[in-house]
Amino acid sequence: MKILLPDTMPLDPALPEGWEAVEVDARAPIPAAHHDAEAIVLWGPSRSHLESAARDLTGVRLVQSLSAGVENIVAAGFRDGAVVTTGAGLHSLTVAEHTVGLVLALLRSLPASLAAQSRHEWDRSIGGLQPLNPPERLNSLVGAEVLIWGFGQIGQTVAPVLAGLGAHVRGVARSAGERSGFEVIAEADVAAALPATDVLIDILPATGSTAHAIDAAVLDALPDRAVVVNVGRGATVDQAALREALVAGTIGGAALDVTDPEPLPQDDPLWDAPRLIITPHSAGGKPVGADDRIAENLRRLDAGEELLHPAG
Amino acid sequence: MKILLPDTMPLDPALPEGWEAVEVDARAPIPAAHHDAEAIVLWGPSRSHLESAARDLTGVRLVQSLSAGVENIVAAGFRDGAVVTTGAGLHSLTVAEHTVGLVLALLRSLPASLAAQSRHEWDRSIGGLQPLNPPERLNSLVGAEVLIWGFGQIGQTVAPVLAGLGAHVRGVARSAGERSGFEVIAEADVAAALPATDVLIDILPATGSTAHAIDAAVLDALPDRAVVVNVGRGATVDQAALREALVAGTIGGAALDVTDPEPLPQDDPLWDAPRLIITPHSAGGKPVGADDRIAENLRRLDAGEELLHPAG
Repeated sequence: MKILLPDTMPLDPALPEGWEAVEVDARAPIPAAHHDAEAIVLWGPSRSHLESAARDLTGVRLVQSLSAGVENIVAAGFRDGAVVTTGAGLHSLTVAEHTVGLVLALLRSLPASLAAQSRHEWDRSIGGLQPLNPPERLNSLVGAEVLIWGFGQIGQTVAPVLAGLGAHVRGVARSAGERSGFEVIAEADVAAALPATDVLIDILPATGSTAHAIDAAVLDALPDRAVVVNVGRGATVDQAALREALVAGTIGGAALDVTDPEPLPQDDPLWDAPRLIITPHSAGGKPVGADDRIAENLRRLDAGEELLHPAG
Repeated sequence: MKILLPDTMPLDPALPEGWEAVEVDARAPIPAAHHDAEAIVLWGPSRSHLESAARDLTGVRLVQSLSAGVENIVAAGFRDGAVVTTGAGLHSLTVAEHTVGLVLALLRSLPASLAAQSRHEWDRSIGGLQPLNPPERLNSLVGAEVLIWGFGQIGQTVAPVLAGLGAHVRGVARSAGERSGFEVIAEADVAAALPATDVLIDILPATGSTAHAIDAAVLDALPDRAVVVNVGRGATVDQAALREALVAGTIGGAALDVTDPEPLPQDDPLWDAPRLIITPHSAGGKPVGADDRIAENLRRLDAGEELLHPAG
């Protein structure tokens, strides 16, 4: 039995007996010699590659994506009987890491420090003696109130890191309770929590109900010193409202790793909003543990067990 | 009994019975009416304030600094019988936070992202699909080898945060062993550990033996993708050697919150070194828990117990 591996990242899964791996060009249609593959791993496939896979792999049983979102793969229309599995979880550590980096860049005034550095200036308004988190400016996680909206695996990885640096962290989920030792409030209670929130972290997926979840009303409800970080999906933030809040000074800062659309058009006024950091969807993109995931799902396929993270 | 509090930060310690607090201008000599104070708290004192305190407080018994380093206070020459106590520990969380922020800014290419943002450019070399930590560039803590040189309270606060993001963290201390659950190697074994170190964090104090601890030989021994972060003291790094390593590309990047001297002179070539972040000694400077420290040391003073963190 044959599994096709993409050439877009180094992979070396421990294959169960009876399987052989073939590396293929993930930016091109699949060669006819490999249309007999029973499994394929997808990572950054081109449109032609994906279309070829869906059309030509007439005996495929496992379509293992390494991405968390697989809408385009499901839409490609693989044969009935093929199971599409997602890369859910493979990006939790890297996205969590980027999230922490963005929060700290905002609180620790890294953009202002870099600007001063470019002027060869030792900026005493940033360094030296400072009050801790004065009402007008958040400069530390110590004692800060953090709210993580979308409290799945990534949020639960971020939470203890921020707590370890002195923040008080809560999550938001559909129903109130506790997850991973952190208090979770219900979505219905977000509005009430915003006035006491210093750091709002958006890790929401893009769904009908999350579109513009962070809108003018949410931004208005936050304290003027609050910062907003989005590592979820661009469509969950009303970018025009965010820009207005930054310009008006009614929030302290923001960082976006995702925008709507992506890439952000060159003439979008968001690029120049004050106290805003934009990173080009660089939080994830580096699957961690892909080999183990592939090997495990092949093993389960052979054993007739339920696969890990089937789509839908 | 009277304790003088500086006006350089808000303070409100719970005073033991019999004590009254008076706020004084920390940038001026102490008014004659308060020369009877038996305790004083120092935070960012001017030279005239410090000299006045040492000369005029003829009955002072406790000199509580909120700084970790108190060389200048000891040198001011308070009366025999006055105990100088340091603010050791009050800066661990904030310095740890800044350290993590600098490490992540380097690994996550924040300076390059900000530069691209200023050009309205969505830089695909930073975002999208990326290999995880290829030999030529470190882009994540996941699986990264971190060495923390100077593994006291700050280092032990940093370590679990980085480990929580997937790094393998070791400390360096005088003798090998384990601290806070992390492996500690002996200083004598640092040279052998450098070739496998991805992130070298310097939290060394300034002493005769730590001057230029990070010199050309250390930088040469690190892999080309390694990054160096200094939140200890500027004198522990040979800045000329660091600049050469950055220019030559024999290290991947560096971040300095401390320099030698401070402020860094405007014409110092270090400002423009590639892949270098300089922050203006902004890691600490915001004592956390000062009120409790003051109250506890006053209580101990009254009870004749040993004071917390006496100098020397």
